Parts: sequence; structure tokens; C-alpha cells
Amino acid sequence: MNPTQCRILIDCRDEKGLVFKVSNIFFNYDLNILSNHEFVDRENNRFFMRSEVVGIIDQARLCADLVSVLPAHATIHVIAPRKKNIVLMATKETHALGDLLIRYEDGELDANILAVVSNYDLLEPLVRKFDIPFVTVSHEGLGRSEHEQQVLGALGALGEIDYVVLAKYMRILTPDFVSCYENRIINIHHSFLPAFIGANPYKQAFERGVKIIGATAHFVNNNLDEGPIIAQEIIPIDHAYSWKDMQRSGRDVEKIVLSRALKLALEDRIFVYANKTVIF
Amino acid sequence: MNPTQCRILIDCRDEKGLVFKVSNIFFNYDLNILSNHEFVDRENNRFFMRSEVVGIIDQARLCADLVSVLPAHATIHVIAPRKKNIVLMATKETHALGDLLIRYEDGELDANILAVVSNYDLLEPLVRKFDIPFVTVSHEGLGRSEHEQQVLGALGALGEIDYVVLAKYMRILTPDFVSCYENRIINIHHSFLPAFIGANPYKQAFERGVKIIGATAHFVNNNLDEGPIIAQEIIPIDHAYSWKDMQRSGRDVEKIVLSRALKLALEDRIFVYANKTVIF
Amino acid sequence: MNPTQCRILIDCRDEKGLVFKVSNIFFNYDLNILSNHEFVDRENNRFFMRSEVVGIIDQARLCADLVSVLPAHATIHVIAPRKKNIVLMATKETHALGDLLIRYEDGELDANILAVVSNYDLLEPLVRKFDIPFVTVSHEGLGRSEHEQQVLGALGALGEIDYVVLAKYMRILTPDFVSCYENRIINIHHSFLPAFIGANPYKQAFERGVKIIGATAHFVNNNLDEGPIIAQEIIPIDHAYSWKDMQRSGRDVEKIVLSRALKLALEDRIFVYANKTVIF
Amino acid sequence: MNPTQCRILIDCRDEKGLVFKVSNIFFNYDLNILSNHEFVDRENNRFFMRSEVVGIIDQARLCADLVSVLPAHATIHVIAPRKKNIVLMATKETHALGDLLIRYEDGELDANILAVVSNYDLLEPLVRKFDIPFVTVSHEGLGRSEHEQQVLGALGALGEIDYVVLAKYMRILTPDFVSCYENRIINIHHSFLPAFIGANPYKQAFERGVKIIGATAHFVNNNLDEGPIIAQEIIPIDHAYSWKDMQRSGRDVEKIVLSRALKLALEDRIFVYANKTVIF
Repeated sequence: MNPTQCRILIDCRDEKGLVFKVSNIFFNYDLNILSNHEFVDRENNRFFMRSEVVGIIDQARLCADLVSVLPAHATIHVIAPRKKNIVLMATKETHALGDLLIRYEDGELDANILAVVSNYDLLEPLVRKFDIPFVTVSHEGLGRSEHEQQVLGALGALGEIDYVVLAKYMRILTPDFVSCYENRIINIHHSFLPAFIGANPYKQAFERGVKIIGATAHFVNNNLDEGPIIAQEIIPIDHAYSWKDMQRSGRDVEKIVLSRALKLALEDRIFVYANKTVIF
Repeated sequence: MNPTQCRILIDCRDEKGLVFKVSNIFFNYDLNILSNHEFVDRENNRFFMRSEVVGIIDQARLCADLVSVLPAHATIHVIAPRKKNIVLMATKETHALGDLLIRYEDGELDANILAVVSNYDLLEPLVRKFDIPFVTVSHEGLGRSEHEQQVLGALGALGEIDYVVLAKYMRILTPDFVSCYENRIINIHHSFLPAFIGANPYKQAFERGVKIIGATAHFVNNNLDEGPIIAQEIIPIDHAYSWKDMQRSGRDVEKIVLSRALKLALEDRIFVYANKTVIF
Repeated sequence: MNPTQCRILIDCRDEKGLVFKVSNIFFNYDLNILSNHEFVDRENNRFFMRSEVVGIIDQARLCADLVSVLPAHATIHVIAPRKKNIVLMATKETHALGDLLIRYEDGELDANILAVVSNYDLLEPLVRKFDIPFVTVSHEGLGRSEHEQQVLGALGALGEIDYVVLAKYMRILTPDFVSCYENRIINIHHSFLPAFIGANPYKQAFERGVKIIGATAHFVNNNLDEGPIIAQEIIPIDHAYSWKDMQRSGRDVEKIVLSRALKLALEDRIFVYANKTVIF
Repeated sequence: MNPTQCRILIDCRDEKGLVFKVSNIFFNYDLNILSNHEFVDRENNRFFMRSEVVGIIDQARLCADLVSVLPAHATIHVIAPRKKNIVLMATKETHALGDLLIRYEDGELDANILAVVSNYDLLEPLVRKFDIPFVTVSHEGLGRSEHEQQVLGALGALGEIDYVVLAKYMRILTPDFVSCYENRIINIHHSFLPAFIGANPYKQAFERGVKIIGATAHFVNNNLDEGPIIAQEIIPIDHAYSWKDMQRSGRDVEKIVLSRALKLALEDRIFVYANKTVIF
């Protein structure tokens, strides 16, 4: 066997000696620790650890050894770095999708884009430029659930998917859909200080005269815009910004935040618990 | 008469030729324009102009001349720069108040602080250091309206007040109180992306795992935290921030934003209309 | 004649009555002012004005009328909005170029990209996806001046060019080249706090342990990285960033700043004087 | 013995098993780990670890045990949290000094301010308000070295000092002075993108038309403004900022960055090596 590199993620009840017990195993395996992060959420008495190690690793045995020393119900992931499979979903807007495509072309996105799935065919010409399959699943004449079944079918046909990235996919997803990819659907949405709920938030923000607009990338849970937050960013604006200007600025910040969140996910840096994230 | 400097603020219905008509008057008065800003809100067909001019100025005549060329119902202010009178109100926290006191001591705050008014006497020792009158108006045993009447009395006794600055004054103000100082009460409050409404917002933000906290300075209207926004700012945080850490960061951003908003007000740079601001 | 929209840019010696004289002309022409900005640099006694107007406009006559009331040597531009012609130049990196291509595809970039010119053919496949001509002018075996002559030839063959955008073009340009497109070549370069001069600035910044990296977009003058600054932005980093991480973050901030600067140029918002810019 | 809390800082050559060996000792001592950070600088093959632990701790024995398992020449600090002793030095400006005084008054600054030392008596009235000793060591008529000897004498008379904070102390310090408080003198200085060296940097930055100004807090080494960077921050500006406006904005960012850097130092979060910092 040759030395390989692994990411080990541990999420369990906190107790004394966890770092010692885990690092003891690493030491016995003669592993080199490339990076190591721990965090204890005292509020919830919960321990998180992410290590990047290199050495001769039998993943199954290593995992079993970790189970044997960790508290019951620990979540342990031993992940050999590999290009993850992602599917992008979009509706009509190009900014978030285009930014990911350019990063993909660039080799910066450490993932395979299996396909772009959309409820329209508008974005097909752009996607085809990059030799990426484009799948249209129109919602015309379909009920929400019926449409989602077809999207799930299309996703299923693409093989194993690690993350579904909603690059401005403008359909609300039902809990049934979300449960198929729990904590694996990444969404981006605009955010304002203070937040505006309901239709046309840019109009509301404009009318209130906000001086900042922002974006939040998060995992999707049952409530479309309310899952665990992965990344946030803002840019300053002023009274001279029309709605349209605000939207354009919003697009810039959305694309940056979405690609940052996806990068964190692809590098296995995100723990999700209690509707929040720990990010190493 | 000697040349003096004036700020002229105009807010009226938009129509053709306004800049020409106003600058024509400035030209006839032989005024030097030091700075000049206009903005038209097309949505509301409204024109805003702020000029700093220097020359021999008869304020009353200048104002009358402007009235004669501007559309009906124009709001015109001809303001000879002078130190404005402000009153600070606070409850128990020192960060926002202290920052203003230091800037005052420094000569950076171009205003007279007439007094600090509080519903506790906790901050008196700090304020006394700066030789500023401290007025306690306890709310103990008083109904809201009764207490406000006493505060209004205390404010009235201080003379003419240009701005009331709520430097973490933790009492809700009634519309009756607010109407006495319309668009002249400046408040600072925390803001989150997304916003959290109700009790203990830092706890809510912590539980949601936000990655950013911010602050909004605004004029107070009938709804305490919802008046026209003057300034906003944020700072990034991460999962390792406890509530307490988040509050400390919140205090830093609050004090910066409050003093920035106050500076804009003291320089007569803010127009308020339709629950928003135009800031030059 | 139909009403058209125009941008009028004026840059001249400051004197009393300029706003009046200019707005008088607008009024006589019965023009509607959509937006209006003035700025006086008191240090240099210089007046800048940019107006967007709509109405029946005879550009030549309007320009002549402005000349007649403005001080000698005033620079006056009356610009009917049109898609400007731009050429992108790049060497090997895709981030800045790709971002502009996606914005172009998106219709967000209000310009015609005549071609992408490079000293390598590496970026040709990417550019071809967008149906944009790609011109390779290899520098192999050529002296700097000889190579530049060929690039100038290639640019000349493309027709009238408004702006040359260096989207990570990694060749130093001589004064001869720059003088052909004075204040029309936009470059982007990394910036650090404090700045590091010389080879491998990321290495220097890494060794110094900077906590921030940034980017500066500017017009090119005789000194490659020292022309008038158009836009700047930064992002925070920490000790865990390797050089490579710093470079990746640097690319993100570079592309945002370059597209922001280009947008300002395409909207005729930039005045250049005394090695600095006024931006409305 | 009662349980106490300790910070343990380790800085040594990297090798396999360090986390294991250290956490093994913590486990044997039955310590609870409150927080734990490690970082390996691969470039320099160097390991950094900071742990906050709670338990029955014999500091000397714990330190000896750590020495026995760590590589030769390891730097180990076992620190029982205590209020550190700091001295502030200032010249004439109040913004950075005042901000620290307010935080001190507020109880936010977890330190004892032993005194404020200045080469002028201008700031004495401000400092006296806070019942903090003020020491004037005038430089009038003294050579640099003579003056520094007197300052060192004044500092020595104040007792044990953990950190000397230069809150806009405008005298250059000689290597002799600095060597007395190696990596314990914290300075704040303005920074620009790109940086301007030499006299009157705000004038230089103004003339170049920078769009951002910033500040850098750092430890002082032989070269006044070039020691290891602790914290940096910026704020955006535009062409309408005069030098004076730029300086005022500069002061705001300076005071925020300085207090942030001091907080990191007081919490023993900073490692210094090779002219850079690791900050946990």
C-alpha cells in the first residue's frame, strides 16, 4: 500500500480525552497530520474535529478504531480526497451559474459537474459551450410534486451526486425533495440589513433605503431560505442605486458567496448540526 | 457685511430647469459654490439639492428668492454653519456613549453636548469626567407616558435641541415623544443577515450560526427600529464566537456607525422622505 | 429629430458661475437632466461635471455653446450612449478574462468585445466558446518593441477601440504603446497592505504575514502599475493561507475590481487628471 | 488545590505525534480542554499549539512534562489567566488613546493600565479623568538615546510590564529600546493600497487618488513600521475626501485595529516567528 491522504471528520458528544484518543490512533497508524481543527460547542456539549492526515490508511479499520474510542452515536467520516460529483440547478439567470462554469473551466472547482438541470432551456447555449450536459425538466402543466418527481428522476439518472448547487434555481423545493439530499443542497439568496420577507425584497429594500446589500449561502432545509448558513458577504450601496443597480450588485455578491460556500463543501470543511454550521 | 459660508438644502417636486434656476440665484448673489450635490428620485419625481456656498449672504432674502423660482411646497433650508446642540440619551452601556464623549473631547464632534440624559445614574461618573451635565430621569414607579413626560421636561429645560442621540437608550419611545423631535432622534441598533425579530436577537443569531453581524443607525419614527436608515456596517464572525463575543463585536460596529450617522446629521447632509434618506 | 440621451462631461479651470452657465444652456435646449454631478478640486482649482440629459440634441451645436461659456482649455465631451468597442488582452490566466466573458454573454457588459489578444494561444479554446475572435501575437523571438508593434498592428486591424482591458496581460507595456491609448488602457494588479515591490509579491506578503490582500484597477501610464486608480477592494486572510490560497483569493478580488472599473469606464464616469481620478 | 484555568502555548519544530503527546499529558492530568488550536507552517516545518484547559494544574510540573515529550528548543508557556500590566504611550492625538481608555473604563479591556507615558503633557487632562497616572518624559533638549533612557527609566519605575502599546506615539524607537520589550511593543500605523513610503503619506495617497485607506497593528522590531503584523483593516474612500477627511477616516480605522490587536495579545493568542504572526 502507498501513502494516501485522508480527511477525517468527527462529530460527537463532548467528553474528556477526545483529542488524545483520536491523536493516539493517528500516532499508532504513524500518520502525518497536515492540519487539525477542533471545536467544542459548550452550549450543546458537542465536539467537532477535522484532520487532514497522510500515511498508509486502511479506511475501514481506521474508522472502526475511531468508533471504539469515541462516545456512542459519534458521526465519523474518513474521506479519501476525490473529485466530488455535483449538479447545478438554475432557472434563467447566468451570473451564479456562469461564475461556476468559468471556475470549472479554469480547473479551480475541484469537482465533476455531471449536468446542469433547469426548468427552462434558456441557459442551454451557455452550458453547452462548456461541454456539460444540460437537462431541461419543464414545470409547465405539472403540479409541484409531479415536477419534483421528474427532477428527482433526472438527478437519479446522473448517478451518485455529492452536492446539488442551486445557482439561482427559482422554484421552492418541498421537504420530500430536500430529504433526498439532506444537507447536500446548497442555495444562495439575497440578504438585507434588516431583512425583508415576502415578495420583491429588492423593492422593499429600495423603499427602506438600505445602505448595504448582501448574500447568504446555506444548506436547504424544509424552509427554502432558512437552512444552516455557510457563508455571507455584503457590499455597500447608497441612495443613488435604483432597484436594477441593487440587483446587479446583489448578483456580484451572490456569485462570490456561492462559490465560496461550494469550495468549503468540496473540501469537507462544513459540519451541520442544530440548524447551524461549524466550518474549519 | 462679511462673506459667510452657508449650506442650502432644497427638497421639492422635480421639474425642468431647477439646477439652472437655483444656480442662477447663486450667480446673481455672486456666491462661490464650494460643493454641490443633486439627486432626482425618478420613482417619486422628487428633486434634492445640497450646496455649500460662500459670499455675502442675506439668508432671509436668499430663501425668499429660492421660494420664488422653486415649485410649490418646496422645502428650503439656508443654514449658517454653527455648532449644533445635541443631547445624548443612554441607559447602562458605555461603548456608544463613551465613543461620542472621546470624540467630543477630541474636538472631532462639531456640536455642543448639552447633557446626557439617562433613566439610571450608572453612567454619571463617566459623563462627569467630561464636565458634561448628567440628568437622571428614573422610570421607576412611572408609567411609560408619565416617564416620557418627565424626559421631555428635562429635555425642554436644556434649551433648543437639534438632535437627540440614543446611544443605547433601551426604552421604547412612544409616537407622542417621537413627534416632538421628528427626524431628529438618531438611534443605533444591531442588525443581522437575515434579521431576527423579537427578544434576544444575539441568541437567535447565534443559534442560526450567522457569519456576519452589523449595525444600523436611523432616525426614529413610530416604530422604534424602523425609521429611515442613515448608515450601516457589518463585521464578519464565525462559529467560534459565543453570544458574548458576538455582542462585543456588535458594540464595536454600533459605535462606529452611530458616530458616522451623527457626523452626517451635524453636517446637514441627510434628507428624509418616504421613510428613506438621501445622503450627500 | 427625436429626443435622445446624452452624457456631457466637462473638465476645466474652476471659476464662479460654471454650474449656472452650463445649466442655463441645458435649460435653453429644453433638456431634461437625468443626473448631474459636480466636483471641485480646490487644491488644483479644477472643476468637473458630468450630466446625463435627454432631449432634442444637436451635439456639435451643444458643444460649441458650452465652449462659448466655459473657461479656455476646457475639455468637453458630449457622448451619445453607444456600445463601446473594447479589446481584452490576457496571457494565461482565466479568472479575470472568464469573468468578463460571462458578463458579456449575460448582456451585463454594455460593450462590443472586438477580440481577445494574447501572446499565447492557451486561452483560445475558452474565448472561442463565446464566438469572440482570438488573436495570438507571440512574443517568441521578438524584442519588446518589435512585439508591441505587432500587437499595435493587430489592434489597429480591429477598428476603432475605446478601451483596451488588460485582463492579466503579463507583459510590461512601453510608453510608446501606452501613448497610443492614453487613459484608455485599464489594468488590474494585486495590492497589499503594506505594499510589496519587486518579484513575487505574494511570497513577500506571505513572509510578512499580511492579514489582507487586495486589488487595484487603474489606467496604465508609463509606469505599469502606477497609473490613476479607478477602483480598489480587499479581502481578509489569515496565517493559515498558503501562497496558493492567497493567490486564489487574490484572483477573486481582482476579477471583481476589474469588472467594476470597466463598468465605470463604459458609463463615462471617470475623469483623469494629475495622475488621479474623479469618479461620478 | 482547586481547579484553575490555564493557557498553554507551544511553539516547536514539527514532528509526528505532537498533538498526541501533548493531549496525552492533558489526559493524564485529567484536564478539560476548553479550546484547542494547532497550526503547522510546512514552509518552516514549525508547529504551533494553543490550548485553554481547566483542572488541577501544577504549572511547573506540567511545563516540565511537556518539555520531556517535545522536540528540543520548544518554547512552552503555561499561563494562568491574570490581568496583564500595560503601559500606553502617546504623543498628541487622542483617538487611539481615548478609545482604549473608554474600553478600560468599560471593563472591556482585560488589563491594568499602569500609566500613560508621553513626550508632551497635552494628553494629561484626558488621562487624569480616568484616574490613570500620566508620566511626561519630554524630549526637549535631549538626544534620541538620552530621551529613550529616560523613558526606559520611567517604564522601569512602573514595575513589571507585559505590553507597551503605542497609541500614536510619534517618536521612532531605536533597536536598543525595542530589544527591552521584544515582541511586546504594539504599534498602529496607517496603510495604503499601494503603500506610500516617506513623509506625509496621506498627501501622497491623496495625490494618487487611492480609493481605500487602512491601518496595520504590529509588533515593533528594529524597523518602526515593519514588525510582525497582528491585525489590519480598511475603509473605502473616494475622490471627494480631502487630506483631512482621509486622516479622520484613518483615525477611525486605526483605533479599531489597535484595540483588536491588543485584545489578541491580552488573550495570549499571538505567536511571533520569522517576522510574522500565527493568531488563534
